[in-house]
Formats: sequence, structure tokens, C-alpha cells
Amino acid sequence: MSTKDIVTAYFEAWTTGDIPTALKYVAPDVVVVGPAGRLDGADAFAQFCGNFAARLTGIRLLRLLADDEGAVLFYETATDASASALAAEYLTVKDGVITEARYAFDRLPFAQLAQG
Amino acid sequence: MSTKDIVTAYFEAWTTGDIPTALKYVAPDVVVVGPAGRLDGADAFAQFCGNFAARLTGIRLLRLLADDEGAVLFYETATDASASALAAEYLTVKDGVITEARYAFDRLPFAQLAQG
Repeated sequence: MSTKDIVTAYFEAWTTGDIPTALKYVAPDVVVVGPAGRLDGADAFAQFCGNFAARLTGIRLLRLLADDEGAVLFYETATDASASALAAEYLTVKDGVITEARYAFDRLPFAQLAQG
Repeated sequence: MSTKDIVTAYFEAWTTGDIPTALKYVAPDVVVVGPAGRLDGADAFAQFCGNFAARLTGIRLLRLLADDEGAVLFYETATDASASALAAEYLTVKDGVITEARYAFDRLPFAQLAQG
């Protein structure tokens, strides 16, 4: 599989809540960096993406650019907290799996919803 | 100039606060979409990027991927609100200028700082 195919399969899996399939494309010792900081390992990855997927009500991939070393994805999400929010991922791929995953998104709508 | 060169020049300009130079690479009727919604036109772009640049204390470009239609950039910022935060841009380039610019970043640290 090409880097683009790996990343596409991972993205389609997690954004539909199919975390077990997403995990097929993720290294056991994956490094995850999100707005709240760094997490280590596939279990932490599964929890991070699972939590986000559970709140998704819609997603639209705007751009995916890949090369041999990885990919950047940019997309629009709809969640329980916001009808439209932009988000992005920067993924490093080595030996057919994602070894590092970085996420940029806005936590403010989630914080505002939690505050009521 | 290639799309990559245009985007690189724009990015280096705005992230160092040189908005006039950044504007050379931006269409007069640019569409800007950020976490707070859509803005239209180069003046709105200048204000948006100027405000962000004024708060930057450091920036590290992690990835820039481009093709003929545009580019995605993924980077780490340091600001008055957060020592380390991930952010991304998705830029559409036509006829040598940026016609659409979308930004994904976390507003929460800024909101928390404003609340004191």
C-alpha cells in the first residue's frame, strides 16, 4: 500500500468509528500529539480517536497530500459542539504504519458546551 | 514561482509579522476561514494574520506539502497563551496568488488567558 492508501484507510476507519480497523494502520508505539499534549501507544491512540469519533456527526475531507514520509489531511467536522469546524492531521508513516500522529483542532466549542 | 514557493514566501512573511509582503501572495478577494468563521478580502486577511502574528513568540514548520492546486502546512506555535500548540493551513493557489485560506488551531488557550 502507498502512504496515501494507508492514510486514507486509517482516516476512513476512525472517522466512521471503526477504531479496530484504524489500528491496523497504526504502530504499537505510536506517538500522538493533540491540543492537550502528548500520548503514547496504540491504546492511547484508540481512546483519543474513539472519543473524537463518538462526537462526530459529519466529516468532509477537504485535502489530503502525501509523500513517501507521510501525509497532511485537512477537513471540516460537524460535532455535537459545533456545526462546522476545521481540523487537520499530520501523520508520519514508516514501514507501512503510522508512527506519529499530530492533530490540530479547536477545543473551544467543546469547552463551551461542557460549561453549559 | 511554483505553488510551493508562493506558499513558503507567504508563510515566512506573515509568521514574522510582515503582512505587507504576505499580501503580495494573496488575492484581493481572498476567502479566509478560521475557527470563528468566514472572512472576505485581503483587508480581513491582513487583520486576521496580523492579530495572530502579534501573539507569536515562536514557530516551527513541521510539514509543507504542495501540488499545482495549493498546499497544506502543519506547524507548531508558541504564543503568549501557550508554549506549544499545533496549527495547520490549507491554501488554494490560482494564477500565482492564494485565493482561499483555511486555518485550524485551538482557541482554548487564548480564551483561558482572556478569562484570567
